[in-house]
Amino acid sequence: MAITYEHIKTCKQSGARLGIVHTPHGSFETPMFMPVGTLATVKTMSPEDLKEMGAKIILSNTYHLWLRPGHEIIKEAGGLHKFMNWDRPILTDSGGFQVFSLSDMRKITEEGVEFRNHLSGEKMFLSPEKAMEIQNALGPDIMMAFDECPPYPAEYDYMKASVERTSRWAERCLGAHQRPHDQGLFAIVQGGEYEELRRQSAKDLVSMDFPGYAIGGLSVGEPKDIMNEVLEYTTPLLPHDKPRYLMGVGSPDSLVDGSIRGVDMFDCVLPTRIARNGTLMTSEGRLVVRNAKYARDFGPIDENCDCYTCKNYSRAYIRHLIKANETFGLRLTTYHNLHFLLKLMENVRQAIREDRLLDYREEFFEAYGFNKPNAKNF
Amino acid sequence: MAITYEHIKTCKQSGARLGIVHTPHGSFETPMFMPVGTLATVKTMSPEDLKEMGAKIILSNTYHLWLRPGHEIIKEAGGLHKFMNWDRPILTDSGGFQVFSLSDMRKITEEGVEFRNHLSGEKMFLSPEKAMEIQNALGPDIMMAFDECPPYPAEYDYMKASVERTSRWAERCLGAHQRPHDQGLFAIVQGGEYEELRRQSAKDLVSMDFPGYAIGGLSVGEPKDIMNEVLEYTTPLLPHDKPRYLMGVGSPDSLVDGSIRGVDMFDCVLPTRIARNGTLMTSEGRLVVRNAKYARDFGPIDENCDCYTCKNYSRAYIRHLIKANETFGLRLTTYHNLHFLLKLMENVRQAIREDRLLDYREEFFEAYGFNKPNAKNF
Repeated sequence: MAITYEHIKTCKQSGARLGIVHTPHGSFETPMFMPVGTLATVKTMSPEDLKEMGAKIILSNTYHLWLRPGHEIIKEAGGLHKFMNWDRPILTDSGGFQVFSLSDMRKITEEGVEFRNHLSGEKMFLSPEKAMEIQNALGPDIMMAFDECPPYPAEYDYMKASVERTSRWAERCLGAHQRPHDQGLFAIVQGGEYEELRRQSAKDLVSMDFPGYAIGGLSVGEPKDIMNEVLEYTTPLLPHDKPRYLMGVGSPDSLVDGSIRGVDMFDCVLPTRIARNGTLMTSEGRLVVRNAKYARDFGPIDENCDCYTCKNYSRAYIRHLIKANETFGLRLTTYHNLHFLLKLMENVRQAIREDRLLDYREEFFEAYGFNKPNAKNF
Repeated sequence: MAITYEHIKTCKQSGARLGIVHTPHGSFETPMFMPVGTLATVKTMSPEDLKEMGAKIILSNTYHLWLRPGHEIIKEAGGLHKFMNWDRPILTDSGGFQVFSLSDMRKITEEGVEFRNHLSGEKMFLSPEKAMEIQNALGPDIMMAFDECPPYPAEYDYMKASVERTSRWAERCLGAHQRPHDQGLFAIVQGGEYEELRRQSAKDLVSMDFPGYAIGGLSVGEPKDIMNEVLEYTTPLLPHDKPRYLMGVGSPDSLVDGSIRGVDMFDCVLPTRIARNGTLMTSEGRLVVRNAKYARDFGPIDENCDCYTCKNYSRAYIRHLIKANETFGLRLTTYHNLHFLLKLMENVRQAIREDRLLDYREEFFEAYGFNKPNAKNF
């Protein structure tokens, strides 16, 4: 198996799992957050920056790399790791989420999805087989099955048909996957907020014995408590000895709440996207560094942070750079936000070790402000 | 004196000078190229990047920092070094060049220049006294006198009046400068391509005993041989025991030709600006990495280069990043071009040491393609 999961312990207070995922490019402890490097680069960051801040695995997007520069070029380069100079694990998605997001420009059939790409408008076709071909060419350690991503909210009947198609497509992915020896293929449990459908989806996919399982269709607009409820009944349906990945989730509260419910891996563009807009995650909550009140604030973004940005630069300097559209400002804010989430996961793992993740949750939520009425979710 | 010049040797073949400039933030060997960090950041680079590539001194722009974030804020931060986390020498210009470039938006009087700033349109006034006040607040090691920057070409009579005004303004700068103990003020020799006026300007300014001298009004559109001719008769007019700075010059051929004519310091936005457009300087000449022919070229930008970019990334990857507007691509190209010029200056210094700078010039020009008819100048 290309990917194996080593279970270390379960938190006695919360049920969260501490583990290690082993891949052909090294291992990482879980629960873990994966920075997103859509186009074979985590925007503004170098591989050395990512290593310095403690990133152990990154995610890249199949749809975007298929379009630019093209998966054949990356294959010729020796694969994505070599192309982008990143020698730690990489996970790629299937391209499905992006293609389904092109709602006015795509047509779904049993065979796959025909769509017009967002750059040239050219007609293209993505199917389970094509998603495997591209990801086999890119060469990530973990690849994702091509699933149908239904809109939120979706009717029960639509969702049921979609879950069944996702299972058939998962079977086709397994059949088309050419490199199971060095690339682990994860299946994606769908079913929206219908417990019965999540059960059906998990049962179908677990019977196919994938090396890992993702939970899809969450963080798509539903309230937080729905996400937590779905996780509560879904994670117990997944094999204890395989990693579990909650797709597209990266707000600090959801990382903690997902860990509590037995999730091992997370990814999201949130920390990097808001960083480029000058919004920072700190131990005391959100900080919008563009605000005029920081113009003469020579303290760090976060007094309690020991990242490169906080050790060397002031709020006033970062505000100046962001307001002047200087890319070094984006480097500094991106670095800080990614470091913040990686450190948060380190704290989560430590709390699991100490059987006190629920206590940690209370402390963290209180300090960040998540307990306030109408708290923003990041 | 805040700034002193230590002469090491003169090249027996060319007359070029090898020396060391000592400043309150450390020393650097000359001839030296200074990367430009207009807004208190060398675009896309961190201070660590700059140190790793061998940058010893950087330049920042008074006009831009006056407008954003404002010199008082930088003063409150503890000065420019601390504000931007750069502990090596900094030189700032006077703001004059930028203000004079606002040709339709400024009015020149003996007192100074009234202009509308390019961001808000607000009326502002820059004078010798104001340029000193701002630079004293910013706190660079080397500051520049406020001079008149005449257009090219300019009539003799206009240029003569301008040179005389520049001398009067230099006198006022000396009088207004509040920190001569820890900031060295350089005067700027003007006079266009009129030898008589260059002599008059140099004589006036040398008599005022500045710690260093710049040569201004070159690289403003005149042919290369005019620049070389002006340098040939101007540098001998300057004190042997003071550094000489040729402003705004950064094409590889001009760095070599300026050094041959006794120049010690250079700055220019050229390497960083063209880098952001995907144009690279290599040991075999210019390379436009956006070109389709590099799409599957997995070799480095420059086979003969040992910089971070060339050691770790391919032309194909950098082309992909630049075409996708990924800022990490700009980091990689900026890093390479700055490293190229810093390395070129290292080679120039070595050639001076070995009394063979004219031979080195021939070798370098031949390899880069400067000897070809209609060669581009970078």
